[in-house]
Amino acid sequence: MTYQNDLIIRAAKGELVERTPVWLMRQAGRILKEYRDVRSKLSGFKELVETPELAAEVTIQPVDLLGVDAAIIFSDILVVPEAMGLTYEMLEQKGPHFPKTIQTEKDLDALIVPDAYESLAYTLDAIKITKKELAGRVPIIGFAGAPWTIFSYMVEGGGSKTFSKAKKMLYTNPTLSHTLLNKITQTTIAYLKAQVECGVEIVQVFDSWAGILTEEQYKEFALPYIKQICDSINSVPVTVFAKGAYFVRKEIAALNCRTIGLDWNMDPIESRKIIGADKTLQGNLDPCVLYSDFKTIERKTKEMLDQYKGGSHIANLGHGVYPDITPDAVRCFIDTVKAY
Amino acid sequence: MTYQNDLIIRAAKGELVERTPVWLMRQAGRILKEYRDVRSKLSGFKELVETPELAAEVTIQPVDLLGVDAAIIFSDILVVPEAMGLTYEMLEQKGPHFPKTIQTEKDLDALIVPDAYESLAYTLDAIKITKKELAGRVPIIGFAGAPWTIFSYMVEGGGSKTFSKAKKMLYTNPTLSHTLLNKITQTTIAYLKAQVECGVEIVQVFDSWAGILTEEQYKEFALPYIKQICDSINSVPVTVFAKGAYFVRKEIAALNCRTIGLDWNMDPIESRKIIGADKTLQGNLDPCVLYSDFKTIERKTKEMLDQYKGGSHIANLGHGVYPDITPDAVRCFIDTVKAY
Repeated sequence: MTYQNDLIIRAAKGELVERTPVWLMRQAGRILKEYRDVRSKLSGFKELVETPELAAEVTIQPVDLLGVDAAIIFSDILVVPEAMGLTYEMLEQKGPHFPKTIQTEKDLDALIVPDAYESLAYTLDAIKITKKELAGRVPIIGFAGAPWTIFSYMVEGGGSKTFSKAKKMLYTNPTLSHTLLNKITQTTIAYLKAQVECGVEIVQVFDSWAGILTEEQYKEFALPYIKQICDSINSVPVTVFAKGAYFVRKEIAALNCRTIGLDWNMDPIESRKIIGADKTLQGNLDPCVLYSDFKTIERKTKEMLDQYKGGSHIANLGHGVYPDITPDAVRCFIDTVKAY
Repeated sequence: MTYQNDLIIRAAKGELVERTPVWLMRQAGRILKEYRDVRSKLSGFKELVETPELAAEVTIQPVDLLGVDAAIIFSDILVVPEAMGLTYEMLEQKGPHFPKTIQTEKDLDALIVPDAYESLAYTLDAIKITKKELAGRVPIIGFAGAPWTIFSYMVEGGGSKTFSKAKKMLYTNPTLSHTLLNKITQTTIAYLKAQVECGVEIVQVFDSWAGILTEEQYKEFALPYIKQICDSINSVPVTVFAKGAYFVRKEIAALNCRTIGLDWNMDPIESRKIIGADKTLQGNLDPCVLYSDFKTIERKTKEMLDQYKGGSHIANLGHGVYPDITPDAVRCFIDTVKAY
């Protein structure tokens, strides 16, 4: 497919680009009034995720309203455990909750490795609609949670400061843990491949709870499964964003991925040294900078861009944009990148 | 004062010791049935903090029941904002909550720098009682929150995943932020000095939310205030535990402190290289290891101890012990350190 703007694909591939491409994690979401208008007519977050036409609509909103260089399909990482047989609820103010969790072999046996085209048709349909409606304006990013992060929700039952139940499982039942991680990985690979077939041009793997593991655990229970995913997705560039996992940047650099996401704690210059020249780096402005006045946003964005000079870079925040950030602040960030 | 066991003081001072001393963050707490028995007779957590005889009793429990090499006074870092005029509630399951927060100059003006001997007499009295009852068996560790961590609660109003309100304040009102941080620092210094006068032999500064800041913010809004504290407490060794702040280990090493706490993500060997030979390191077994069987706890504890060889070390977990850990698992950890 020919894109009017394929900057992000070329940057991800490490090609020379006229300017740094830019998008934001959670760009399709509560920061936009137009998103909240769509959302307010529905019973909840999940109805939006599961209604392809509306998911496509909110996916495209930030392309029109903010001028980002890519759309990211509107969905949630928790659609994967749900497709495997573990339903989640999205509680207002509180976040995700799993009424049932995985504690025993029996719980694990009840899980399936689903056919993505059946169980996750709503997201795949949303991709197809988005693809058609965007008509080549910008590429679409597909995504999934990394197996460890999905595992942590399935065992813990929701968010947690310590994820101590999930980590306890790794220590007390490594066999069950690996079997569950394997099932998640197989589901994720099939799902990401289906996303690619339906039209996404980049896929990003989000390891949101990477930073909760020790280095030893990360190497045993997280990296090998991300590796399987990277090795299985060959037709589009893969981005790995392992939040907080500063201690395995070198190991992530050895994966078969093209882009590595940095969170706002990670120093871009030090990260480039650890990761090497080959990969594209993505990130990493502190999301809270967008609470500042425009002058400060512009200055901090330029300082951030300076730190990536001399290597392939996709500009982003170091975390998802917070819902109470104004669209004007986001536009200031985006416009500063574009004018750099 | 002469102690029967002063291993921890000597290790903190960098002196040669017969064996590595050991204690646990949150050792006085819910892991012990004897603590829960005391607690269950009271209206809540705060009543325990504010009743010197009972606070002393639970402070001593882990010395008797677990065999740790130090007592840490039972209290909470949030007694400082409360003494300054900002009351907190401790909500079951949910954690701390501040009905009023600091948002404006007016809110800030209403805060006082209290006389610790008046407003925090309950903790100081608890130290005196503990001192008397321990009768030199082991030293007492005093503590306070680091100014940034206390600031984050006072602005945010409670725990948070992102502390985005507190970080927003740093970006949008640096003047107010510095004034508030200064007030907290002055209160903290006076409070820690009073703790020393009442008998603590080590003080630890907990910067629990260090890892939420960027390196630049940490250097502007956190480090200078910890430095003031370290420079003001001269008569006993100071420990700094800045959880998640891997990116400023070098700068923390330059402070006038004796011991640096490591969280479970930080590699002891790499940390020793960054920090240098002079300081004592404290930590850092993953708290979730204590969910394992005794053989695994023993093996992992020994592996951890191996990594500190050749330098001064105080053994601890890399975070507070989790409330559902069994006392037997904690004893296995402690006994392994002692037998090493």
